[in-house]
Amino acid sequence: MKLSQVAGALGAEVIGDPDLEVRRLVHPLDAEGAGDLALAMSKAVVAGGGGERAGALVIGKDAAPPSDGRSAVRFPGPERTALSILTALFDPGPIHAAGIHPTATVGPGAFVGTGVSLGANVVVGARATIGERSVVLANVVIGADAVIGADCLIHPLVMIGDRVRIGDRVIIHSNTTVGADGFSFIPASQPGMAGTPGTMPVRIHSLGTVVIGDDVEIGAGTTIDRATLRATRIGRGTKIDNQVQIGHNAVIGEACLICGEAGIGGSAEVGDRTVIGGAAGVADHVKVGSDVAIGAMSGVSHSVPDQTVMLGAPAMPAAVFKERYLQIGRLKSLREQVKDLQNRLDALEKGGKVG
Amino acid sequence: MKLSQVAGALGAEVIGDPDLEVRRLVHPLDAEGAGDLALAMSKAVVAGGGGERAGALVIGKDAAPPSDGRSAVRFPGPERTALSILTALFDPGPIHAAGIHPTATVGPGAFVGTGVSLGANVVVGARATIGERSVVLANVVIGADAVIGADCLIHPLVMIGDRVRIGDRVIIHSNTTVGADGFSFIPASQPGMAGTPGTMPVRIHSLGTVVIGDDVEIGAGTTIDRATLRATRIGRGTKIDNQVQIGHNAVIGEACLICGEAGIGGSAEVGDRTVIGGAAGVADHVKVGSDVAIGAMSGVSHSVPDQTVMLGAPAMPAAVFKERYLQIGRLKSLREQVKDLQNRLDALEKGGKVG
Amino acid sequence: MKLSQVAGALGAEVIGDPDLEVRRLVHPLDAEGAGDLALAMSKAVVAGGGGERAGALVIGKDAAPPSDGRSAVRFPGPERTALSILTALFDPGPIHAAGIHPTATVGPGAFVGTGVSLGANVVVGARATIGERSVVLANVVIGADAVIGADCLIHPLVMIGDRVRIGDRVIIHSNTTVGADGFSFIPASQPGMAGTPGTMPVRIHSLGTVVIGDDVEIGAGTTIDRATLRATRIGRGTKIDNQVQIGHNAVIGEACLICGEAGIGGSAEVGDRTVIGGAAGVADHVKVGSDVAIGAMSGVSHSVPDQTVMLGAPAMPAAVFKERYLQIGRLKSLREQVKDLQNRLDALEKGGKVG
Repeated sequence: MKLSQVAGALGAEVIGDPDLEVRRLVHPLDAEGAGDLALAMSKAVVAGGGGERAGALVIGKDAAPPSDGRSAVRFPGPERTALSILTALFDPGPIHAAGIHPTATVGPGAFVGTGVSLGANVVVGARATIGERSVVLANVVIGADAVIGADCLIHPLVMIGDRVRIGDRVIIHSNTTVGADGFSFIPASQPGMAGTPGTMPVRIHSLGTVVIGDDVEIGAGTTIDRATLRATRIGRGTKIDNQVQIGHNAVIGEACLICGEAGIGGSAEVGDRTVIGGAAGVADHVKVGSDVAIGAMSGVSHSVPDQTVMLGAPAMPAAVFKERYLQIGRLKSLREQVKDLQNRLDALEKGGKVG
Repeated sequence: MKLSQVAGALGAEVIGDPDLEVRRLVHPLDAEGAGDLALAMSKAVVAGGGGERAGALVIGKDAAPPSDGRSAVRFPGPERTALSILTALFDPGPIHAAGIHPTATVGPGAFVGTGVSLGANVVVGARATIGERSVVLANVVIGADAVIGADCLIHPLVMIGDRVRIGDRVIIHSNTTVGADGFSFIPASQPGMAGTPGTMPVRIHSLGTVVIGDDVEIGAGTTIDRATLRATRIGRGTKIDNQVQIGHNAVIGEACLICGEAGIGGSAEVGDRTVIGGAAGVADHVKVGSDVAIGAMSGVSHSVPDQTVMLGAPAMPAAVFKERYLQIGRLKSLREQVKDLQNRLDALEKGGKVG
Repeated sequence: MKLSQVAGALGAEVIGDPDLEVRRLVHPLDAEGAGDLALAMSKAVVAGGGGERAGALVIGKDAAPPSDGRSAVRFPGPERTALSILTALFDPGPIHAAGIHPTATVGPGAFVGTGVSLGANVVVGARATIGERSVVLANVVIGADAVIGADCLIHPLVMIGDRVRIGDRVIIHSNTTVGADGFSFIPASQPGMAGTPGTMPVRIHSLGTVVIGDDVEIGAGTTIDRATLRATRIGRGTKIDNQVQIGHNAVIGEACLICGEAGIGGSAEVGDRTVIGGAAGVADHVKVGSDVAIGAMSGVSHSVPDQTVMLGAPAMPAAVFKERYLQIGRLKSLREQVKDLQNRLDALEKGGKVG
């Protein structure tokens, strides 16, 4: 790729040779040769040195051009914007072969779109549909009557259950399960006083499904349960990290970020653009609004209005949490203060001098 | 299915035509035609409308029959009881073919019972046993000498380790591992003062196994480790949600419910009918009694007697937790109260009027 | 195996017949016959009885030899040391066939070392390398250009991504993913006041990799993300339990123990020999030192110096946590104390007797 193309993608300026060829985007410390384009925008990275062996550099708006005359691209925006543009540009994508691997098993009535890649040992259920150009990597299992949209990327060892519907451009990482049965039981009862036997838990079957919107990404080792009668839903553009658990009947809005090990309870609802921190929990049936931020490891047990920041387990508005946290930190001194008052009062009561 | 059969399963009464045919159980809002039976029992669902296009309705004990003369089933019990009976009745079960798929690999000496279904790419180890009518879906791996009972349902991509024993009618969801090695190490030691090198962690191998009772259900992405010498045990009728971790040597009783992302430490014991909330933890070697309820995200670090409700991390009896939570919420006012006392005492000591 | 060999491995003494043959290491309660060697070292185990049917016993340094004249091995060290030596000695290892299973798929240019076992349906990507004697069990997927060292054991259904590098003697348990993409997005922005549309989250691609050191063990259902540009690193000898999440760019040192359901955030750093408790979290970009212990369910949000014990969420030094916990437990009595002071002060101010 020519440096001018890199600059074009960034909407940035080339300093030096626009026809220079670069093949790899690297951290300056990893630069090994002429084809390497080193991302040297943040102060910490620049201060750490390296990059002398890069063929060219991407530099920030206030940086001096390389003093040795090497070429550079100057990008005036934030480093993370450069990262998003450049990593997309240089991502080779997963290596996969075209067409249906001979070891794949495609069920009767299944429809495999043009340009689809099905990897080794992929199993596609009866009447399932795989949209155009979608890539399904090795050992994935797709259930009967499932629908996968176009341009999806399903990483190895994913399970997509019967009747699940997935939009376009969805990415799902390995060992993730979309469409397991919900955890829905009538609990056991204790044996009664009069010698009646206790009951065992009684199962409520999951007849519903999961519907995943366009441009959703789901991490590795995540589980999304199917609904009881209707659909568990993940809105368009929402990104879900690794090891997230989403319960049956939950409805998640658009453009949310749900971080690793978070758990969304059954029948919970989450609005749009809400960010749920790592290992945070949202209880069953709770409604979380739009543009909410829930701190890592917080436990939301009641509904949360739009544009609220919540912290703690049980979760409370951030200001309340910080106030309480501060008060707890001062408890020892409060206790000493009370002791002091007690001593002074004792003295007063014993006829200490008043005035 | 005729409406009279639905009513029979529920032990309920038909209002209208007992011979009406229904094919699908739906939420009223999803009803699309004559074959749809809409579950319209809860007030919220009824108030939300829909259901006009359902062929028939299931209604609660106080509800008026449909005013347009359509047929209905009137069920006097709780909605969740109706759900458990009706979802079982209408569950088509996972779609699977009879017999052993040509791509399945069955090890030497393995025994596959009558009516068993082994899906594509299933691997069954040497001398393993699969009981009658069990369904093992695609890409499952079953270890050597493992024993699976009758009428089990093993979803795709499950791993069942060597020698693991599983009862009858057990359901295991996708990407779950039963029988990984326990996490058991002698920790590393620091390098010593006199220049002696530190040690690395030393492994304790897991020679034991896992024994799963009848009627257990295990969610997706869950892990249950094998014991060091004996067996990690899950009692009859216990239901385990997604992404639960159960450590080596743990012994879980009967009819428990263990919610998503909970963790049970190594050598922990849990009694019967105990409910462990989402993302709750039970520490290594701790004993939790029967009929205990542990709140979501609570951390149990000491043994818990029967019939106790525990909350918090570290977990304490619910009443204690609530008292402390209340006290913490009033800390700011307590501090103000102390400040006020201090002012009054200052005044008194300076010769303020007494009496 | 002869009892003398057992004693030799332990560096211990035989009491009785050194030529006695033992075939299985068991808990005394599980002993079934002459070939069983019962581990009867801890007082609790000895007090629980059993072992009468064992062919021989392993006993502690102060225990009397079996009164019935059976043979024994007397081991003077701790029980866990005996366990580590004996379980290694008696571990048959996973049952697997030599060579490449006919259903395995090996990509073009891949190198499979001498003595490697590839199980059924294993998929090895183009140009990947599997080192000598490594055992890769059924349905594992190894990406293109990945490098696996010698003497590794990869359990069924593991995913190892493209370009990931794994050392020698590494063990990885089932349903684990090494090398999923990092969770790295520019968050969505809200729709603006003047009717401008909000943005969707923008993806930062993961071009980097994961590097796993020698002698690392990774549990089941764990996920380790690849770095953005460089490498997520797990140091030599570190042991990781089940369902642990390790974010992109994280660097973990040597000989650490990371317990089940813990989460290490993106770009976090952890030193050597650090122990991270179950379900504990380390936030993004945080640096945790060497020889640190982080309690179960603690949440580390700031950097932690070497040799610190941290508890709580948010995590604080253990002494501070314990002090605060104690103070919270005494809040009710503090409040009563303040009430009492208030009453006494009221009385004083009303002219109560002073002196």
